[in-house]
Amino acid sequence: MIKYPNKKKIDTNKNISFSNRGMNLEDDINQTNAYYLNHNIAVVNKKPTPIQIVEVDYPCRNKAEITKAYFKTPSTTDYNGVYQGYYLDFEAKETHSKTSFALSLLHKHQLDHFKAVIQQNAIAFVIIRFTKIDQTYLVMVKHILSFIANDTKKSLSLSWINEHGYLLQSNYQPRLDYITAIKAIIEEEKNG
Amino acid sequence: MIKYPNKKKIDTNKNISFSNRGMNLEDDINQTNAYYLNHNIAVVNKKPTPIQIVEVDYPCRNKAEITKAYFKTPSTTDYNGVYQGYYLDFEAKETHSKTSFALSLLHKHQLDHFKAVIQQNAIAFVIIRFTKIDQTYLVMVKHILSFIANDTKKSLSLSWINEHGYLLQSNYQPRLDYITAIKAIIEEEKNG
Repeated sequence: MIKYPNKKKIDTNKNISFSNRGMNLEDDINQTNAYYLNHNIAVVNKKPTPIQIVEVDYPCRNKAEITKAYFKTPSTTDYNGVYQGYYLDFEAKETHSKTSFALSLLHKHQLDHFKAVIQQNAIAFVIIRFTKIDQTYLVMVKHILSFIANDTKKSLSLSWINEHGYLLQSNYQPRLDYITAIKAIIEEEKNG
Repeated sequence: MIKYPNKKKIDTNKNISFSNRGMNLEDDINQTNAYYLNHNIAVVNKKPTPIQIVEVDYPCRNKAEITKAYFKTPSTTDYNGVYQGYYLDFEAKETHSKTSFALSLLHKHQLDHFKAVIQQNAIAFVIIRFTKIDQTYLVMVKHILSFIANDTKKSLSLSWINEHGYLLQSNYQPRLDYITAIKAIIEEEKNG
């Protein structure tokens, strides 16, 4: 059997220790979603990574082991769910930049999916974390799409995001309370 | 290398031939969802099967090959999406029975998820196909939950499903037009 020098074991028992709080945006969102579910606030889930399964072994009766598979390109965004009848759809993105968010971080299939769900009156947004300055924003996708349509710049400046987005608070529970921002946005749209 | 006698190759090039029309409920729904997406009617997707990845090889730069992984139990239903601002959530089930639908086909994690999304005003339903008599129904989950709460029977009879559900038509395009039933249900609820 050929041993690939770069074979990687995935640590499946990885625990999110308390000292990691705020370190990883995906963990923060997953824990926030668990909190929302347990408190009947919203039901939002991360979609599993789509995988093309090629070969499966059945070493014993009830245990199927996948022995050959490939990652597929997703056709949607990572998160969706429901809050008081509203359909929510979003992506989470981290950037190491301190000053701007590169639009190339939003892939074509994500933008296409966003356009399709916005046509169906979805609440579509991106959660952007500036890891270096520890600030996390919720930005509605419609603002980003209108920026892309009207501007040639390849990135959103932090000041643009600050103006068009909502700065999210990191708490103990929920870790990253984005539903409070969504609630405010729904209220604004009702009144405006 | 040990050769497992029951190693299975998954046929990744499986094409749905036209003669298979109506044969497989999942294919019908996936093709219907593709039609809805292309015609801006709704955006509904099947969630990928969740998989626990244990080992990944990188035989060349851009090609990651999963060499060890296991199936995980999903925590949600298979399909969700948005139709004109409404959040849709459903499961698709086939039965070979000609007279009833065994409630055991709805798993606990699916019922728990349905209860959670109904609390958030989701439109939650099950699409049930009686393969032997070629009839497919859309049944709202709230009716099923109230049946379970009030009845000790372990299955829904075809006549109960006929009374509480909507018989869906199989067409050329879309294959299985469940949105028309959803539209009627939304109208009824508005007027009732």
